[in-house]
Parts: sequence; C-alpha cells; structure tokens
Amino acid sequence: VATEVGVGEFDLIRRHLQRVGAARADVVLGVGDDAALVRPRQGMELALCVDTLVEGVHFHPGVAAADLGHKALAVNLSDLAAMGAEPAWATLALTLPDADEVWVAEFAAGFSALAGSVGLALVGGDTCRGARAVSVQVAGQVPCGQALRRRGAQPGDRVVVSGTLGDAAIALSHCLDPQGRMLPAGEDAAARQWLLNRLHRPSPRLALGEALRGVASACIDISDGLLGDLGHLLTESELGASIELSWLPLSAQALAVAGESAARAAACAGGDDYELCFTISEACTMKLTTLSARCGVALTVIGRIESEGGLSLRDADGRRVTPLATGYQHFAR
Amino acid sequence: VATEVGVGEFDLIRRHLQRVGAARADVVLGVGDDAALVRPRQGMELALCVDTLVEGVHFHPGVAAADLGHKALAVNLSDLAAMGAEPAWATLALTLPDADEVWVAEFAAGFSALAGSVGLALVGGDTCRGARAVSVQVAGQVPCGQALRRRGAQPGDRVVVSGTLGDAAIALSHCLDPQGRMLPAGEDAAARQWLLNRLHRPSPRLALGEALRGVASACIDISDGLLGDLGHLLTESELGASIELSWLPLSAQALAVAGESAARAAACAGGDDYELCFTISEACTMKLTTLSARCGVALTVIGRIESEGGLSLRDADGRRVTPLATGYQHFAR
Repeated sequence: VATEVGVGEFDLIRRHLQRVGAARADVVLGVGDDAALVRPRQGMELALCVDTLVEGVHFHPGVAAADLGHKALAVNLSDLAAMGAEPAWATLALTLPDADEVWVAEFAAGFSALAGSVGLALVGGDTCRGARAVSVQVAGQVPCGQALRRRGAQPGDRVVVSGTLGDAAIALSHCLDPQGRMLPAGEDAAARQWLLNRLHRPSPRLALGEALRGVASACIDISDGLLGDLGHLLTESELGASIELSWLPLSAQALAVAGESAARAAACAGGDDYELCFTISEACTMKLTTLSARCGVALTVIGRIESEGGLSLRDADGRRVTPLATGYQHFAR
Repeated sequence: VATEVGVGEFDLIRRHLQRVGAARADVVLGVGDDAALVRPRQGMELALCVDTLVEGVHFHPGVAAADLGHKALAVNLSDLAAMGAEPAWATLALTLPDADEVWVAEFAAGFSALAGSVGLALVGGDTCRGARAVSVQVAGQVPCGQALRRRGAQPGDRVVVSGTLGDAAIALSHCLDPQGRMLPAGEDAAARQWLLNRLHRPSPRLALGEALRGVASACIDISDGLLGDLGHLLTESELGASIELSWLPLSAQALAVAGESAARAAACAGGDDYELCFTISEACTMKLTTLSARCGVALTVIGRIESEGGLSLRDADGRRVTPLATGYQHFAR
C-alpha cells in the first residue's frame, strides 16, 4: 500500500474535471468538496445507475481518450434512456496507470462534449492509480411513477428496437485486430469508419426514452446483445416472445463489411449496441412513425410478446432457429 | 476485448448484491433493472460522492473481503458525514479478477452490515472482470442550505478533530509487513489488533456530522492525513490556522506500539483516519462536551483559525515546526 506525497492528484482533478458538462442551476456545490450538493426537482424520482469500463475487457489499450470519455458516459446514459429518465448529474471514478495530463484532458473533453449536449453536469470525481478503468455513475430524473421498466410487457405487445443492431460487434470483429489496431480497408473504408464510430461513440437514445413514457409497456437497453437483454425483459415480465430474425435492422455498413450472415449474428448477440428494445401495445404501433421522426432514430418491429415463456426465433422461411449465443458475459462459466 | 457467453455475471450480482443494506420505503426499484428508482424527500439537497479502492494502492491483496466491503462503504460515508448528510442510497462498481462467489458473499456481508446499521440501501451494482477494485457511490440527504462545507471557517474559530489520529497509518507501518501480513506481536497484541481494526473497519462519524449542522462553520473528513485535509479546508476558506501538535489526539494503542514520535507524525500526515476536522466559533466550544457525549466520539481542539494564510505548527515547547509530509497522494510528482 503506497504512501506518496505531492499535490498531483488534487491538481489533476481540479484542472480537468472541474467544469465538465452542462452548467445546471440545481448544482448547489460541484466538484471540490467532500461531496457535491444538488437539488432534485419536486415530484421526480431519481434513476441511479453505474457502469464500469475496464481496459482489456471493455476497451482496447489504444482507444482514444476522448472516445473513452464519450463512451463511459454514453453507456450510462443509455441506461437512463431505458428508464425514460432525463440526465442530471454524474460522478466519475477514474483509475489510471499514471498521471498523464494530456490523456485526462482529452478524456474530459470527450466526456464533457456529450454531457453538455444532454444537459448533464459532472459533480464529483475521484482519480486514483491502478489498471486503467472508468466507472461512471449517473443520476437522472423522471416524473414519479412514469419510469419505464423491464417488467410490464403484455401478451400481444410488439417488440421494437431502435437504430440498427450489431454494428459495434462487427466493428470489433471485422475492422480491428485483437490488439485494437485498424485492419486494412479497401473500398469499404467509409463503412468501416462508420462502424468504428458506432463502437466508440454510441448515441444514447435519451429523446426516445423520454418519448416512450406512457407509451412503452417495458423497456431495456441493449448493451450485452439483443437476445440476452430481451431475455431479461421477458424474465422480468414473466412472458415469452417470438422474434423474426429477418426483421432485425441491419446497417448497410455492417452488411457491406461483414456480409449478411455475420451481420445478423452480430445483431442477435453482439454487445455494445446501446439501442433500446421496448414493447408497445398493438394499438400503439401506429405511433412508431411519429416517434421515429421526432426522436431521429429508426424504430423496427421485430416480433411480439407471447404468453408462453421462452424466446422463439424464426428465420426468413419461418423455420425455428436456436441461437448459439445469447449475450456478452464478463464471467463465463 | 473479450466476448464471452454465460449467465455468470447476472447470477453473481443477483444473488449477492440484491438485498444489501437497509430496506427503505423510498426505494421504488432496487437492483435488477437498467437503473434504480428512488424518491428524495422534499426540501432536501442530495450529497453525492464516489470513492474507489484499488488493490495494491488502497488495500493489500490479502485483505479480508468483509473488511473491504465495510471499508469501501465507510470511506464514502465519511464524506457524507463531513457534509452533515444522512446516508440514503449507494451504487457499487466491483471489478474482480474472477467470479469468486465466496469472496463476493463475504464482501457483500461486510458492506451490508455497515449499510444496514446506517439505514443505507444498495440500489445498483455493476460487476466486471479486471484488477480488483471497488468503487462506491453514495447519495445522502441534507436539509436545503444546511450542508457543511470546507468553506466557511472564520478567524478565531477553533479547529477540532474527532477521535484519535494516525491509528491506521501506525497499523500499516508497525503491524503489517509490506505484503500486508501481520508482524509478530508481543504483549501489545491487543493494541495491534485495535489499530488494525482502525485501518480495516473505520467508523464514519455520521452522527457527529449531522449534529454539526448549524454548529460547525466548516468541515472536512480526514482521509489523506490531517495537515493535507486541513490545508484544503483553509484553501477553501481562504484563511490560515495555527495548530498545536502536542494537542493532537493520539490513541494509547498507537503510543504503545509506535512510540510518541512516530504516533505524532502519523497523526499529522498518515492517511485513512476517516475522522472529521471542523471549525467552530469560540462561543460554540462549550457545546463540544455535549456533542462528544451525544455522538460517542472524542472531540479535541487542536488549534485556531488565523486571518493570515498558511498552516503554522507548534510543538509542545511553542517552537514552530515544518512538516515533512502533508498528505497521501496517489500521483506523486
């Protein structure tokens, strides 16, 4: 257990993590005291969550600091989106192998750009030495009783996903080598760059999440692969679902770079999508077009909720398919 | 970047981190959805903070899991105590080299016992693989405008500390070898055990923090050594202080194991005390006896706030002393 003396840590935190994200009137006291002080709005519930990204597990050692700053926040915002909550405040625990100020400045810039764009303030930070890892905790606000949950789907509801699925997994498997270096590109360079952007700079579907309050019957964010995460929603709702694999939304870029078979497999079980998977009554499906236009993201019906448990998958010919993999797991057994 | 498949992670989290700490009526939704939902009390500000403990930096590899569970929460509760806030909810990011369920169960038990005793609920958790580290985020509540801050000390105020200082640092330097194994004890075995308990099981001064609302003019928790942390309070208050080193409260155990010189040095600059350092007007010093009795912790005046900046230290003979070290730093420069 090291005991070292200096002024480095405090300076590092102060300089780069002090004014990150939006300036909010409800932040009474930000970074720099024993704790931050914030004032929640009346009539709101708080949505609280935490997600950690560890070097070598969730990101390659060479990833750009600004990308990591964006992503560490984005994965948490995706959880808030899945609850229908509006982002408010975040704290950050940053573990670094050394006090590399350029790295911290770039990390903070990536984090701050996303935070500012969604109105979130960073109110607390802790920096310490160790294997590189980023843990972000966010607090969002949602009117009492209106949060979206995994539980609540009804038989007959349609299963809907936002955006396209599998892009990040294809970027990992087709655009980067195991060390995270870019593989040589041909005519598909633009498609590869787009896929890498999907991996490194996910867009949390916050506007969609808020718009789904009172509309979706259940919701989850897809971080560990569609089938695994949909499985959680079904478990919590105590229902099953039939999914049409041929309906899964694939990007033109994933199809161009990886081909249909790999793209579809990635859409089923690849991680890092950060899209929303939600259920909606049949009557509400007519709202999807408007919702999609309003929130600026594609919405695709991929199946329906069944009263019988389990996940039933069908291919384009109507044959039942058994998935090989159902999600990303850090602890395989 | 690993892609593994299984059900381990979710099971691990569910089984051991699901009902940790107090059952609170204001927890609408706990562990197990994309985010937890909680309802803050009206008229309260939230105090938010995060602290990370990294193996090899903040704790020895061999530390008992239950002790680590206690301490990871305690260091955060100490921050809430320093704000005068009442603990409410926590989230936990646990990074582990492997899915050792016995370890997780013991960790959870240590965390839960402390959380339960202070009325805090664990509402969210994230478990992932990597070098062992624990990041805990806590949210506390404090009536609007009543939080204690580092800023606010006035010239002439007395500087007060709770408990005894330097015990954890003496435990590290005198009771454990560099690998964290216990050094052989003689007649002082009980004293050594008491010091190790101070290192591994700090008692956050929550009752004191709450009792200091409206009484203390400024407050900070001592986690990185008295002189360093008092320095932060002085910087924020834009004032100085004169401290009588001979007044620092030393435990009989630290004196017995390490001798007066080492014990006093540890009280000045050793880390991991988790006591409070606060300032109080001269008129309020008469309240200290009652406060001490009510909160069950010794309170010792160690000096006074001066209008001139800087920290002036005096030994028992009234001579000015220059400290060699002023605090614990993870990034020395």
